[in-house]
Amino acid sequence: MPSSDSKARLWIKITLPDGGQLGPGKIALLKALDEHFSIASAARALNMSYSRAWRLVDELNNSFAAPLVETHVGGKQRGGARLTAEGHDLVGRFERLVAAAQAAAAKELDAIGSVSTPAGEED
Amino acid sequence: MPSSDSKARLWIKITLPDGGQLGPGKIALLKALDEHFSIASAARALNMSYSRAWRLVDELNNSFAAPLVETHVGGKQRGGARLTAEGHDLVGRFERLVAAAQAAAAKELDAIGSVSTPAGEED
Repeated sequence: MPSSDSKARLWIKITLPDGGQLGPGKIALLKALDEHFSIASAARALNMSYSRAWRLVDELNNSFAAPLVETHVGGKQRGGARLTAEGHDLVGRFERLVAAAQAAAAKELDAIGSVSTPAGEED
Repeated sequence: MPSSDSKARLWIKITLPDGGQLGPGKIALLKALDEHFSIASAARALNMSYSRAWRLVDELNNSFAAPLVETHVGGKQRGGARLTAEGHDLVGRFERLVAAAQAAAAKELDAIGSVSTPAGEED
């Protein structure tokens, strides 16, 4: 019996050359920074601690040749932050990558979903 | 300067309708079971504890309408195990899904790798 809940979902992350990781969480943080212009506000919007958001921004900046996020007026003192051109570029690339992968995987993903146990039918 | 190490890699997992997850680790376990015909031997081959391998097999079987792994002569007593037709089918589907997603993502993945900090160049 078909169930509208029988959806399998793809979850994609990237392992970077330096061993760092880039996934939906860091991309969401970059997008929130682009909206809020502050690490503290972006963290709040994502229900994330300030120290975690700061650490993720630091990891991101270290993983790329050019910084993705520029902080000013003393970042650690909760000053402002903004995405650089490279940061914008990366968000766009990640989203295009996920969209392309989703489209290519859709057929097998649906087939896997259709043989899965529906939500709430654990035994 | 181009670096032969500047490869970004895709990491894909699937979130199943029941909330379970299917990723490279569980697929490797299914493939090892198909080779070794025993959960204990498959676990050893993957350097995984027997209890973890058993738990993963149990999660897999619960997440799908038909069992992926059949155990016999008392599974918990380290008896034999083998992949069902559904288990073989799932491994094939997952591998085709990953190959299709990799191919579709290759262009953006290479672009992300090319602006990443090369391996071993952390500051």
